[in-house]
Amino acid sequence: MKDSSKSTVMRGPKRACYDIHQIHQILDASFLCHVSFIQNGEARIIPTAYSRVGNSIYLHGNVKNQMLSALLDGQTACINVMLLDGLVLARSGFHHSVNYRSVVLFGQGKLVVDENKAELLNGLINHMLPGRAEDIRPHHQKELDATLLVEFAIDEASAKIRTGPPVDAEADYDLASWAGVVNLKTVVESIEPCPRLTTSIEQPGYLEEYESRLI
Amino acid sequence: MKDSSKSTVMRGPKRACYDIHQIHQILDASFLCHVSFIQNGEARIIPTAYSRVGNSIYLHGNVKNQMLSALLDGQTACINVMLLDGLVLARSGFHHSVNYRSVVLFGQGKLVVDENKAELLNGLINHMLPGRAEDIRPHHQKELDATLLVEFAIDEASAKIRTGPPVDAEADYDLASWAGVVNLKTVVESIEPCPRLTTSIEQPGYLEEYESRLI
Repeated sequence: MKDSSKSTVMRGPKRACYDIHQIHQILDASFLCHVSFIQNGEARIIPTAYSRVGNSIYLHGNVKNQMLSALLDGQTACINVMLLDGLVLARSGFHHSVNYRSVVLFGQGKLVVDENKAELLNGLINHMLPGRAEDIRPHHQKELDATLLVEFAIDEASAKIRTGPPVDAEADYDLASWAGVVNLKTVVESIEPCPRLTTSIEQPGYLEEYESRLI
Repeated sequence: MKDSSKSTVMRGPKRACYDIHQIHQILDASFLCHVSFIQNGEARIIPTAYSRVGNSIYLHGNVKNQMLSALLDGQTACINVMLLDGLVLARSGFHHSVNYRSVVLFGQGKLVVDENKAELLNGLINHMLPGRAEDIRPHHQKELDATLLVEFAIDEASAKIRTGPPVDAEADYDLASWAGVVNLKTVVESIEPCPRLTTSIEQPGYLEEYESRLI
């Protein structure tokens, strides 16, 4: 990726990565991002769903969505995707850390108005849960009209990744503190059918696939 | 909490909550936040650890940390804590959603320079993992000197919470799509002792407590 000053990782540069494949891999491992933007001269932040297609990120929202309106004003959005992989417990507070995969990207919003809009909205659903979009009815025109879909071609991006055990000051390895990594993961706790679900409708296979992918 | 225009939830106001106890409860259920700020006239975002004490949020970083330096310039930080609780699978793409607990707060940074700094840094560690700070050596003075600790008194905050099953258009309840909620949770995948851990050091009880709290 283009590597201008604003996407150059300043703190912990050894953890930085500008490889586009690795960046895409991290973007594909989540569907929830945080978007930072400026409104009335102040910084704002919103967590929201996204999808990735090629080197673009797609966000959507209601036509009255303030964030998307602000981002369509020409400003550059700054978007983060963060996957927390573990707690890194060092022998000093100073060297405590977390293991993670994180991408910060910059891009300018462009309203999607062409005939791909419905398909791209399905892509957002499948990015959250692969196979889901094929199991629901097609969008109604009035739903498409009520939804803003905004493409952000990724102008600049950088990833930051930490893996592995704690790194302590040499003198601290003899201390009596326990040290190591608590690896974390997100799993399916339960699947709750809608109370109004017709009893003859069986649980779809893609849900089982999703569940076993997380285990 | 004070409820000015910028912390009034505009989209999905039925999901909004301004109750300080509920806001604190959400802030106490995570230790990872996203901070939005302005640097060189553009929006930036950084995921980072935090702790809460009373009605303040504490962030820390290296003395050269660009985000903290920018936030100590007098601008108002916008901070989000987001807990993803589940995927909400409706019968249309339009009504797909997630269950979540989210807080957006605004505050101005104030450098902590008093004698509580070491204790507050321990608070950051215990906010990530209760009991951990008591198991590690005290901070060295040069570590304290190399660390910025910044307090953000919460000037304004709002929570947004979604729970429960999908809410579909009435006409869609008869469709043949499966619908319901996939509840998600974060668990401990494994605990990996540091390769250089002295073998006589047993795994501390607070790690088991943490693990069973997540299960």
